[in-house]
Amino acid sequence: MEVAVIGASMTKFGQRDAWIRELLSQAGEECLTDAGVTPDDVEHLYVSNMASGEFEGQTGIMNLLAHDLGVLPAYSERVDQTSSSGGAGIYEAWQSVASGASDMTLLVGGEKMTHKTTGQATDIIASITHPDEYKHGVTLPSFAGMTARHYLERFDAPRESLARVAVKNHKNGVDNPKAQFQKEITMEKALESPIIADPLRLYDFCPITDGSAALMFTTEERAKEITDEYALVSGIGGATDTHVVHERDDPTIMGGVVESSKQAYEMAGLGPDDLDVAELHDMFTILEFLQLEGIGVADQGTAWELAMDGATAKDGDLPINTSGGLKSKGHPLGASGVAQGVEIYEQLVGGAGPRQVEADTALACNVGGFGNCVITTIMEAAE
Amino acid sequence: MEVAVIGASMTKFGQRDAWIRELLSQAGEECLTDAGVTPDDVEHLYVSNMASGEFEGQTGIMNLLAHDLGVLPAYSERVDQTSSSGGAGIYEAWQSVASGASDMTLLVGGEKMTHKTTGQATDIIASITHPDEYKHGVTLPSFAGMTARHYLERFDAPRESLARVAVKNHKNGVDNPKAQFQKEITMEKALESPIIADPLRLYDFCPITDGSAALMFTTEERAKEITDEYALVSGIGGATDTHVVHERDDPTIMGGVVESSKQAYEMAGLGPDDLDVAELHDMFTILEFLQLEGIGVADQGTAWELAMDGATAKDGDLPINTSGGLKSKGHPLGASGVAQGVEIYEQLVGGAGPRQVEADTALACNVGGFGNCVITTIMEAAE
Repeated sequence: MEVAVIGASMTKFGQRDAWIRELLSQAGEECLTDAGVTPDDVEHLYVSNMASGEFEGQTGIMNLLAHDLGVLPAYSERVDQTSSSGGAGIYEAWQSVASGASDMTLLVGGEKMTHKTTGQATDIIASITHPDEYKHGVTLPSFAGMTARHYLERFDAPRESLARVAVKNHKNGVDNPKAQFQKEITMEKALESPIIADPLRLYDFCPITDGSAALMFTTEERAKEITDEYALVSGIGGATDTHVVHERDDPTIMGGVVESSKQAYEMAGLGPDDLDVAELHDMFTILEFLQLEGIGVADQGTAWELAMDGATAKDGDLPINTSGGLKSKGHPLGASGVAQGVEIYEQLVGGAGPRQVEADTALACNVGGFGNCVITTIMEAAE
Repeated sequence: MEVAVIGASMTKFGQRDAWIRELLSQAGEECLTDAGVTPDDVEHLYVSNMASGEFEGQTGIMNLLAHDLGVLPAYSERVDQTSSSGGAGIYEAWQSVASGASDMTLLVGGEKMTHKTTGQATDIIASITHPDEYKHGVTLPSFAGMTARHYLERFDAPRESLARVAVKNHKNGVDNPKAQFQKEITMEKALESPIIADPLRLYDFCPITDGSAALMFTTEERAKEITDEYALVSGIGGATDTHVVHERDDPTIMGGVVESSKQAYEMAGLGPDDLDVAELHDMFTILEFLQLEGIGVADQGTAWELAMDGATAKDGDLPINTSGGLKSKGHPLGASGVAQGVEIYEQLVGGAGPRQVEADTALACNVGGFGNCVITTIMEAAE
């Protein structure tokens, strides 16, 4: 059974004066409109969200959204995989259609975070980490700092290469009206911003964000009846790496990225050379390098060269994060993986506006925790 | 693709001196052993859990469990559907195998609740309810009380019929060493226990519980290679009802039960007359009646008669809640739906010990919120 995506939407990402309920509802309604289907058509509804209970004291948001969107009696469920909840939602939506359980599945991801102080939000996010590491005070940014230092020293990569990721993704974000930040930054600004986790500085990190994004999935057969603008999910895979980060044999190899992309390539019958555009999970700049290597686009220790020579820029050989990435678009946990899917879908159906590149095959890689769990999705333009 | 269940386990339910991590791990390990498969065989791991973040400040428990069980690089994901998270996990596990995404899927459900005060636990559970109703102070027990009063008056049912549900399920629980309570109660005790939500009394409610349960799913083809003791998931369906309970046309009709059981019967090619045993979600005694009517075993307003004449007792025409039900087994939110699956699986493969009844076809109905979302699963014994 071929699974198609026939609609996409996302709210403005940023500091939003709206609760999770409103954000999900807005993205969901816009996706119904974009897909050209009615609420009655929807058979399954998945909500990707990590922590509405912790952030807002409201649970059961998937039932609430089913009610608000008027899709009853559609099945509704919340999918959590921490920061890769959105990618996990894509996997579930795919499975729901591929298994025959649903002919029309709406996926809405979202998170409302900015009403908390940075400390409170960081505490909620840090609850992802393994208890044996968390008790020593390790956080995700500190893992990123240690990994970046190791990578730069081991592979003799210049510090500037990380800043180039930030500068590139901010530049891409200028053309995305839904991005949290729509402003370019200079190399100087990135390199002189305050140190957060040495050697990483403020501009190596994504912000804390509110927002929601949605995708509509159906069978290819049904997609053809509804529209001629659709994409196919031709490959998808998911994998878990050790939850204890210090147990990994090589801190520069993200096992979940390697394994999930291998599954996705095999299913699609493609390889890294076939990709035209990709969204990678640049929660920290260093992760863009590790994922480029994990998905096989670059050999280990060489992805920094792609940043230096412009190969991953919008006009390069393989544009990465045309949406602006998590870096400038923002990172509302449960929404991010769905928003990656929205961007590659729009690129494949020619709906990316000023961000448009030529693309028939696209990949999205969504990372949970510090690579604890990873979903890789490959979409292709319909013939 | 026929999906089979080849193993099951559950921890002791009750007040446990163990955190969610330990409970999940214990059930998961025992299920691997029961199924006779190694950690390397597992391709997908689903964890049904509503609120480990709220109860323990620990999130990412699916990645943690994947690590603890040694099933890496298996895909791992948390499934939340409030009190029906366990049933939702069965649906996801089924989809993962039926879609071809996984050949061997482990589902582990669990919740750790009793370390919180009753007030704290109730606050977390009440966050399920619709914000428009919650702000008026409505809780799930108060919905149950109002529904029970309406049912008894409208259908001229005796108050004793509700007490009979409690007495029956406590009696069944005596034979379940994993149940929180293994003691019979008398009609007098049930009818004279303190009023909680008039007309419902203490013994009309399930307790707050810690515990975990697990099931192993694979293809029928693979099941045959591994064992001759397996069951088939022949029907499954899920549905959402209005989240605002007071909007329902008839408070005695649980729309989610009706719709999800309709889907499950259609898929299995069966009807209510074909059932040999069933587990229903008796979070409140009144819910056993509403589900018996929702799944078509009794006409509207008549299920109370089955309680009065003993038809739902272990030696009756259709034994209901041979496990002891949520009433005496306990209700660790994310575990409950999985534990229902464990009971019907054990009944079908002849592993229910002193609780064993003759059964080739069994149904489980898992209810989230006050019927906000419902999963109905039908299993059949292998030929």
